[in-house]
Amino acid sequence: MKSLTHYLTFQVKQRMEFVNITKDVERVVAESGVREGLCLVNAMHITASVFINDDEPGLHEDYAVWLEGIAPHDPSRYRHNRTGEDNGDAHHKRQIMGREVVVAVTEGRLDFGPWEQIFYGEFDGRRPKRVLVKVLGD
Amino acid sequence: MKSLTHYLTFQVKQRMEFVNITKDVERVVAESGVREGLCLVNAMHITASVFINDDEPGLHEDYAVWLEGIAPHDPSRYRHNRTGEDNGDAHHKRQIMGREVVVAVTEGRLDFGPWEQIFYGEFDGRRPKRVLVKVLGD
Amino acid sequence: MKSLTHYLTFQVKQRMEFVNITKDVERVVAESGVREGLCLVNAMHITASVFINDDEPGLHEDYAVWLEGIAPHDPSRYRHNRTGEDNGDAHHKRQIMGREVVVAVTEGRLDFGPWEQIFYGEFDGRRPKRVLVKVLGD
Repeated sequence: MKSLTHYLTFQVKQRMEFVNITKDVERVVAESGVREGLCLVNAMHITASVFINDDEPGLHEDYAVWLEGIAPHDPSRYRHNRTGEDNGDAHHKRQIMGREVVVAVTEGRLDFGPWEQIFYGEFDGRRPKRVLVKVLGD
Repeated sequence: MKSLTHYLTFQVKQRMEFVNITKDVERVVAESGVREGLCLVNAMHITASVFINDDEPGLHEDYAVWLEGIAPHDPSRYRHNRTGEDNGDAHHKRQIMGREVVVAVTEGRLDFGPWEQIFYGEFDGRRPKRVLVKVLGD
Repeated sequence: MKSLTHYLTFQVKQRMEFVNITKDVERVVAESGVREGLCLVNAMHITASVFINDDEPGLHEDYAVWLEGIAPHDPSRYRHNRTGEDNGDAHHKRQIMGREVVVAVTEGRLDFGPWEQIFYGEFDGRRPKRVLVKVLGD
């Protein structure tokens, strides 16, 4: 069995931002030499997400507005912020968008449908944060 | 290590519909010969979900009403639909219900609790769409 | 390839409760002898979640209030409860918080970011319910 673990680091400029990381993940899969296996991609921070959806700017604006409606930033809403944080909302947005994706690796490549792209979803940005990529298989 | 990859295709009649695919997945696991491993089941389209819950029609009606409340179909609400699409809502509903499930395979079978069943969740139906099943293990 | 499957049982006192199960999972990983692999942790019941977030009591109160807003307990709201159940809300809360997590095992340990902790999220408690932990790798 082969395995490879790689850590990506992102520092985005806004509080909330979506970054297409598909090519980064593809590089790790290629380097792993795995032909048949699974690839785990997860945020290592609890105010960020990794998810798969469309690389379409209008959709990403829709997500931002929608998530702000479901879990508004307003720091006064969250008991969590009594600890001195102001990112209570980010812990909620992350639960909607998810922590991780698991992608099939088939014949050495991410086995994707026509529009699947992997995104890093940041909800408390402006500082360096990490994403783990682990490929496992033969 | 053994692995098997299989693609299921679904074309549902409604825009939103939930299909129990447990038996399809069980067949792939049996065919794989894997006794101890993991089984990934994911939607290959970004307006659909794979999730595990109860096979109870009342619950599925509840989900449909609830998802429509969280992300209404109304095409005018979504910037994504400026691209000519009318499925912006489906990209949101899919994030709530999730893209994939990973299920343990133990002694050659899906290792399930008493009521766990796997569903394909369609949010932009009436055309053929695929689900990937990948079994990995020994 | 090595694998180990372990079942944890929880009976919480409240309807909704969050339990930190990180140490339980760490014990299974250590016992498995896996150095490089994946660890699946999933609720075996469809009214409960496994998720990764912060071990901060204020945040857990925030989650409880927020989930109650998105899917209120009120049994009269859910068609599912016509079956005699009163837990329709729990099936919805579980979809927001997720069924499972997949965690990388690197050098024999859960490969976690600084604040990641694994939680069992119960939404229909006061009876024994199970969580599956499966470790797979070399």
